Amino acid sequence: MATHHRQAPELIISQWFNTKNDITLAGLRGRVVVIEAFQMLCPGCVSHALPQAQNIHKMFNPEEVSVIGIHTVFEHHQAMTPASLEAFLHEYRINFPVGVDTPSTRGNIPKTMAAYDMQGTPTTILLDKEGRIRKQKLGQEHDMLIGAEIMSLLREPS
Amino acid sequence: MATHHRQAPELIISQWFNTKNDITLAGLRGRVVVIEAFQMLCPGCVSHALPQAQNIHKMFNPEEVSVIGIHTVFEHHQAMTPASLEAFLHEYRINFPVGVDTPSTRGNIPKTMAAYDMQGTPTTILLDKEGRIRKQKLGQEHDMLIGAEIMSLLREPS
Amino acid sequence: MATHHRQAPELIISQWFNTKNDITLAGLRGRVVVIEAFQMLCPGCVSHALPQAQNIHKMFNPEEVSVIGIHTVFEHHQAMTPASLEAFLHEYRINFPVGVDTPSTRGNIPKTMAAYDMQGTPTTILLDKEGRIRKQKLGQEHDMLIGAEIMSLLREPS
Amino acid sequence: MATHHRQAPELIISQWFNTKNDITLAGLRGRVVVIEAFQMLCPGCVSHALPQAQNIHKMFNPEEVSVIGIHTVFEHHQAMTPASLEAFLHEYRINFPVGVDTPSTRGNIPKTMAAYDMQGTPTTILLDKEGRIRKQKLGQEHDMLIGAEIMSLLREPS
Repeated sequence: MATHHRQAPELIISQWFNTKNDITLAGLRGRVVVIEAFQMLCPGCVSHALPQAQNIHKMFNPEEVSVIGIHTVFEHHQAMTPASLEAFLHEYRINFPVGVDTPSTRGNIPKTMAAYDMQGTPTTILLDKEGRIRKQKLGQEHDMLIGAEIMSLLREPS
Repeated sequence: MATHHRQAPELIISQWFNTKNDITLAGLRGRVVVIEAFQMLCPGCVSHALPQAQNIHKMFNPEEVSVIGIHTVFEHHQAMTPASLEAFLHEYRINFPVGVDTPSTRGNIPKTMAAYDMQGTPTTILLDKEGRIRKQKLGQEHDMLIGAEIMSLLREPS
Repeated sequence: MATHHRQAPELIISQWFNTKNDITLAGLRGRVVVIEAFQMLCPGCVSHALPQAQNIHKMFNPEEVSVIGIHTVFEHHQAMTPASLEAFLHEYRINFPVGVDTPSTRGNIPKTMAAYDMQGTPTTILLDKEGRIRKQKLGQEHDMLIGAEIMSLLREPS
Repeated sequence: MATHHRQAPELIISQWFNTKNDITLAGLRGRVVVIEAFQMLCPGCVSHALPQAQNIHKMFNPEEVSVIGIHTVFEHHQAMTPASLEAFLHEYRINFPVGVDTPSTRGNIPKTMAAYDMQGTPTTILLDKEGRIRKQKLGQEHDMLIGAEIMSLLREPS
């Protein structure tokens, strides 16, 4: 049996927070990447997904596992501007890099969200060291399972 | 011994949500009033104080106990506009009346917050049926104690 | 309309813990009484009802509100002996008085449990200052509601 | 650098629950083994360690990861007999194999607990596929970390 894993589309980001340099997935090849797509006014993102992403960021070596937040605003656009996001990240003490997903010129779905065909927030995505999508999940996931999945990707030969 | 309870200053609100008519404390005389002062980007407000206020609103008869939220923005003003607040109330399914505290013309502290001399958010305030301040507390309070305090005020003769 | 509240049957206890003198409901007249009927191996009792009873014990003046635990063993009798109960109370740091419900000479239901017609554990019972049953509830109750109900009974004229 | 991992001493069990056949570590060679040492009246075991062990049992393939509980009674011996333990396992719906640690003929520490030099309960122990001790931890551990550590052992070549 052969399983084909799709190569992750490059992120399309209009503005970065919590990083000096812009981030590209191409530049993270060789690391496991955790993408947490969220909206700052999504209750499940605030109570569960973002604390989980923060724990991943704390528990794994950032040289081996990169955690990236993507602010994929697809509703209430006026309410979740980059200025609001910046205050949110400060108040919730989120310190991993977060990119603002580039708004679409037509429709409500921003560009990275569309490229990954995400269905809502929170969406957690795991990429292997080759930059392929190994998991994409809408909604809440158990900490123990996420920990095991990340370690499984880490233990794959580069 | 005689204890003097200060009469609660009138609310100074620039915009109301979740109510057809503007609310005044004077118009609520005869009811116990719970004022929950919060900021939408304050983590302790989101995780504890607002769910508690929502529970008070659900558990007591609104003809006897009025729950009022006040959005007392004293930092990150650009990030917590009335448009952002409206989306926040919708996403978090908060359905009791919420007023926007009127910004000050000088300084960061809005007018109602200043009139009550609040020190931060969340602040929970209990008024008796005569409109006097019987409790004002910064930070988290136990559900059981709040329930008992509200009932104690309710049982006072009008 | 007139509501009749049943006088609470006296407790039928074979052994007391956490009290120097045996306790009778007759001796508590004038106080609000909270009876928490539990089994030490009932998960809902351990995770919710006993911590709630402990909070009531801590939050209210014991001269006004008496919290009493009753160990109403109706299953696994060999596993929940008074010796086991004593170790349980020590490990869980329960310090309000707890009585062992007297086993029945026929059947599994102990005598106090039968006298109150309890349907299982945990059961929370509130008595007013006259010793009448004002609430009897099987299962989990919200802290805020319990706090309000106790205060309501406290505010009744003696 | 070379790290030496100690071979896990064999379990010394007087009675098994939740298994048809007695279990030996020798018989589990080739699998990762999670040993959860607990006492049924230890609050931290009940609220955290046993639910975590139950989650490991549910989340991993039992052909690859064996979860074993050990009832290491070192205090309140009269209160935590095998009869009490059996009722406890039933009420808390614990369905992985649990062994009763054999009481010592001198002193309070049972034999397996002594062989592993455990300092208290709960203690979580991870064995690799060769039966060596790779982790031994007293107290609470984060779900995410445990998940990652188990997966790391699973990914080691047999």
